[in-house]
Amino acid sequence: MNYPCRTKKNIQKQINYANRGMVLESELNETNNYYLVNNVAVIHKKPTPITIKKVDYISPQKVKIKDAYFQKPSTTDYNGIYKGRYIDFEAKETKNENYFPLKNIHAHQIEHLRKVIEHGGIGFIIVRFITYNETFYLDGKDLMIFIENNKRLSIPHSYFKDKGHLINIKYNPRLDYIKVIDKIYFKGEYYEKEIRKN
Amino acid sequence: MNYPCRTKKNIQKQINYANRGMVLESELNETNNYYLVNNVAVIHKKPTPITIKKVDYISPQKVKIKDAYFQKPSTTDYNGIYKGRYIDFEAKETKNENYFPLKNIHAHQIEHLRKVIEHGGIGFIIVRFITYNETFYLDGKDLMIFIENNKRLSIPHSYFKDKGHLINIKYNPRLDYIKVIDKIYFKGEYYEKEIRKN
Repeated sequence: MNYPCRTKKNIQKQINYANRGMVLESELNETNNYYLVNNVAVIHKKPTPITIKKVDYISPQKVKIKDAYFQKPSTTDYNGIYKGRYIDFEAKETKNENYFPLKNIHAHQIEHLRKVIEHGGIGFIIVRFITYNETFYLDGKDLMIFIENNKRLSIPHSYFKDKGHLINIKYNPRLDYIKVIDKIYFKGEYYEKEIRKN
Repeated sequence: MNYPCRTKKNIQKQINYANRGMVLESELNETNNYYLVNNVAVIHKKPTPITIKKVDYISPQKVKIKDAYFQKPSTTDYNGIYKGRYIDFEAKETKNENYFPLKNIHAHQIEHLRKVIEHGGIGFIIVRFITYNETFYLDGKDLMIFIENNKRLSIPHSYFKDKGHLINIKYNPRLDYIKVIDKIYFKGEYYEKEIRKN
């Protein structure tokens, strides 16, 4: 009998899966942890939703999930609070040099961001162009303007350069996207004060 | 060879597991769906975090999780936005008649609620006393006051009656907890307007 999970091909796939978009994710987790510890903001990544088919009860405290599948997320990956405002975003990497393909974000995630903005929240996307090692903050309002005015299914790199905000990679916090939010929504005042306090 | 997951005992346990706290959870999901569809608020339950040990690649689109474990959640289960304000809460049922045992909420979840309040968000717990079929909203500030002033590890039912707000079970929305938030934080004005609009 063959055990498919032990084949070389499958191991390779597991590694690829594990690394998919993990650099940006781990940098954002580090950044969010910095914000949490320094009392700047409370922002967490949501766990990936799964459908569980079968579990095993190893002990009253330990349940082993034996058969489960990933679900399509109905919301974005990250949300939380900064200065009383609701924060919500999705983060993606692309190897594409000229475009960010919109298919990387599910339609219901875009719909979710639209609702967040309607309800007075701060919604946006963070997109990394791997080729240039550039990471952009694109405000949800500018994302919606693009979608409403373009039939194309990709956002050009030039649109990010024009409407987006480049997030510089620093030591700590790694990807200081709150600084961009502060500039757009709070005139940069609060963040400076907060940094001085710490 | 025995297959432990096929034993009668295990099947029984699976059913119990599946029903644990599910009534309140499903009523809250219904309620949140009502809020979403009627454009009142955008509030979702977070997926339960898991640690994945082993997966199988069935097809490029389908990944089967073969070995995974539940993690302790580091935040509360529900969050979202209402009228621009950040909303965050945990919901629990208890069979206990006189007390809500605080051990039902992890220490880091209480710490998370405390941070949410500090950052200007609206944090609270929803607790159902199954015996009386009573569901209470207890504001995070009153939860913190109790914890700071009491060494006991359970909140008496009387504290919920005194400081909490009873949420009546209705047809739709099932558990209208936003009405309580509106009363406490918005003087009830916005919600009435919203309801009239729909």
